[in-house]
Amino acid sequence: MALDPPQTAPKVCLVIGAGDGVGGAIAKAFAAEGMTVCVTRRARNLDQLEALAEDIRKAGGRAHAFGVDARDEAEMVALFDKVEAEVGPLEVVVFNIGANVRFTVLETTTRVFQKVWEMACFAGFLTIREAARVMTPRGRGTILVTGATASIRGGKMYSAFASAKAALRSVAQTAGRELGPVGVHVAHIVVDGAIDGVFTRTNNSPEAVAAKLAGDEILKPDEIARSYVWLHNQNRSAWTHELDLRPWKETW
Amino acid sequence: MALDPPQTAPKVCLVIGAGDGVGGAIAKAFAAEGMTVCVTRRARNLDQLEALAEDIRKAGGRAHAFGVDARDEAEMVALFDKVEAEVGPLEVVVFNIGANVRFTVLETTTRVFQKVWEMACFAGFLTIREAARVMTPRGRGTILVTGATASIRGGKMYSAFASAKAALRSVAQTAGRELGPVGVHVAHIVVDGAIDGVFTRTNNSPEAVAAKLAGDEILKPDEIARSYVWLHNQNRSAWTHELDLRPWKETW
Amino acid sequence: MALDPPQTAPKVCLVIGAGDGVGGAIAKAFAAEGMTVCVTRRARNLDQLEALAEDIRKAGGRAHAFGVDARDEAEMVALFDKVEAEVGPLEVVVFNIGANVRFTVLETTTRVFQKVWEMACFAGFLTIREAARVMTPRGRGTILVTGATASIRGGKMYSAFASAKAALRSVAQTAGRELGPVGVHVAHIVVDGAIDGVFTRTNNSPEAVAAKLAGDEILKPDEIARSYVWLHNQNRSAWTHELDLRPWKETW
Amino acid sequence: MALDPPQTAPKVCLVIGAGDGVGGAIAKAFAAEGMTVCVTRRARNLDQLEALAEDIRKAGGRAHAFGVDARDEAEMVALFDKVEAEVGPLEVVVFNIGANVRFTVLETTTRVFQKVWEMACFAGFLTIREAARVMTPRGRGTILVTGATASIRGGKMYSAFASAKAALRSVAQTAGRELGPVGVHVAHIVVDGAIDGVFTRTNNSPEAVAAKLAGDEILKPDEIARSYVWLHNQNRSAWTHELDLRPWKETW
Repeated sequence: MALDPPQTAPKVCLVIGAGDGVGGAIAKAFAAEGMTVCVTRRARNLDQLEALAEDIRKAGGRAHAFGVDARDEAEMVALFDKVEAEVGPLEVVVFNIGANVRFTVLETTTRVFQKVWEMACFAGFLTIREAARVMTPRGRGTILVTGATASIRGGKMYSAFASAKAALRSVAQTAGRELGPVGVHVAHIVVDGAIDGVFTRTNNSPEAVAAKLAGDEILKPDEIARSYVWLHNQNRSAWTHELDLRPWKETW
Repeated sequence: MALDPPQTAPKVCLVIGAGDGVGGAIAKAFAAEGMTVCVTRRARNLDQLEALAEDIRKAGGRAHAFGVDARDEAEMVALFDKVEAEVGPLEVVVFNIGANVRFTVLETTTRVFQKVWEMACFAGFLTIREAARVMTPRGRGTILVTGATASIRGGKMYSAFASAKAALRSVAQTAGRELGPVGVHVAHIVVDGAIDGVFTRTNNSPEAVAAKLAGDEILKPDEIARSYVWLHNQNRSAWTHELDLRPWKETW
Repeated sequence: MALDPPQTAPKVCLVIGAGDGVGGAIAKAFAAEGMTVCVTRRARNLDQLEALAEDIRKAGGRAHAFGVDARDEAEMVALFDKVEAEVGPLEVVVFNIGANVRFTVLETTTRVFQKVWEMACFAGFLTIREAARVMTPRGRGTILVTGATASIRGGKMYSAFASAKAALRSVAQTAGRELGPVGVHVAHIVVDGAIDGVFTRTNNSPEAVAAKLAGDEILKPDEIARSYVWLHNQNRSAWTHELDLRPWKETW
Repeated sequence: MALDPPQTAPKVCLVIGAGDGVGGAIAKAFAAEGMTVCVTRRARNLDQLEALAEDIRKAGGRAHAFGVDARDEAEMVALFDKVEAEVGPLEVVVFNIGANVRFTVLETTTRVFQKVWEMACFAGFLTIREAARVMTPRGRGTILVTGATASIRGGKMYSAFASAKAALRSVAQTAGRELGPVGVHVAHIVVDGAIDGVFTRTNNSPEAVAAKLAGDEILKPDEIARSYVWLHNQNRSAWTHELDLRPWKETW
């Protein structure tokens, strides 16, 4: 299916990995800024993604859903080409795929170690490279990469996850240094703490979640998203490349 | 001179070290948010500070200037008490005193090493502690600390400056961990790169400065200030504790 | 070919990636400590590796060469099993495979990004996991991992290499935290600077190399190796987990 | 009292802060390497220091004790001059003064904050600068600086201690970068964990200490000292500038 080419090109925000609450909140936040948002996740869960796009459209925004395997180079190149050709010029690209697993080094299978890296790092590399490809000629654009505390250091049970997140952060640092001088802003955001979402709601009683939300004790996706929008809105004379986000009561 | 006590208490922002362009811009930015701003610098340069306060008042804001030696405990305690009693409750406190000097270790005199630490670290400790004293009982408030690349690592010619800035960053980290759970947000901002101001304008031709400003190639104080305001406006469910600010063309 | 099983089990040091001067020097240094050394590299360059083993034997040491693709799980599992069964208990395992390439993010192909990760990180994960597998039941052993400055941060032209090295360092950190309390020492060594070896000798005149060697201005593999031996010899009451090695004149 | 000038100049190791077990062990370890050791601590505790020197002499070493306030520039300059003139050329200088206190930011008095900085940082700066002064003309020498985990990051209750230790580490980093190229090796050692000594023995039963020592579960001063000696013995083609030392069971 080809999308109707837009009459005038609106600015576009692409969120790779909008399957969780954070990706969805980021998409909504950029839609509220007036951007057309494109959201992706694996094709097998496309229904949920369509529902997110529909929510955004009902709120007056413009949104398109794409089923994409972010680890597949051909699919990713085609996605960036399609969005640029049929939706508009990419102004913001967000990489928001996690792959949190917990195993000791001894218990970490080859398969797990590779899969986690493919999802959390390799897909991020493809995202950053393809964003750089379309943004560099225009000398503008913002690339935002979701990190975690594991991005900063290894910790018990995190050999696969921390390794992939450290690898992703390193790509973001390199890209930030290479692309900054051509006008493309790359930032890595360390999101540290429990996030309101499916995982937290599955592992806590509704009352516990409600209490934590009332007290702002867990990360609220909409508040995370506000900082993503802020990073995009920074003037290029004073860009941030790395920052952390954590709830006030979090120990670190 | 006693200030008239306010009828209703407006929120107050105190900027310790508003003698340079960055401190002034931060004061103006918080004034534009509707806060009453109190700005300080050494008493001997009070004229300039009064001019800053007057600028803010002309723009419709509320501002008070205080000549204070930030390294003097008695003066600092009195300042915080006076502001709280006569201006209003401190919502934001900014520490923005630098003391950049360049000497080899061998050439660094005891006097220089101590003075730089007193200005860049000890005064910052007093600021953070006194802010904590008045904010902790209210369970709210924001403390913002200006850092530099030297805060992160030592470098040739920076034994005094980098040492003091690393010491200050450590206080901010400790305070962030202690005060976060009581509702006080502490953030450390690494400002990295040439800043538009007296130093840059003295060491470059007007044409060079104008070209760099037109190209956003040096840090603009107003843009730095916008990120300080942003940090204060973050919801406590997603606070940032450390971030960097640098121009797009900066190498790092 | 089966090796003759040893009459009494000598301690064994296995160096994964002994194809360069550093790996060879490490093998020689542990052989000089009285250990039987096993050295590996890709099968296609086995001749050189046999020459290394022969050098060690001529010097009175015990050495075995193995052609192994360190990225192949089955080959690696078989290698560890064979060494344990036929040579002796692994006391020291060194991972020393690099994969330094330089491309901008835009020029980095999927193939390069994956290959570099497989060589520099995934093979290292296999090495650490298999070493942990045989050492954990004995509650002793040392795992040494060669890093680079790129392990610490991303830099222009290093998106593939720095990402893989950061990922490897993270695995070493995780393993250090998990295995320390069971008696296995994991250390990550950041080797920073030009190293005397094929690369340096190809890119500099013999006179230039000789001058640098005479002045200790480039890293000497034998001196690198001495610190690897030192790390192994540390008493478990005072273990080092991360350190750097660089020539005295190196800027960092 | 003037010391007899030596007939031939033996190499000298000066340990600033030999009042605890670690400083004493470092002095003994360098004495065992054949160096003449000079040890210092505050004059009021000179008896203990004389006992340490006597122990070293009984073991066949050469040792001198000096009562010095390491925060006093005049005393420190005089000490370095006296040792150089009357004992011999300084080959190794160790700064080993800590000042661990625990208070919240709010409870940290100005006096505590300043005293801790003077002891843990300012005295270290004087030590490093004076060592640089005598070593630079000879183009050789080693300066070793004892750090702690607090050197790396601030933590609850550590605003004074962590700030001073971060400041000290920064001086060591700067000095390392400035002095390396002139042949002087500067290294900073993060000692992390409980150390066998007065503090540990006062706060634990003899049985508990004995059990921990038997299991190498606390840092043994002699083992710490061995790594200090190792750092001095590194060839300048492969110097370490930062490393950690912690017991195998330590969580970090």
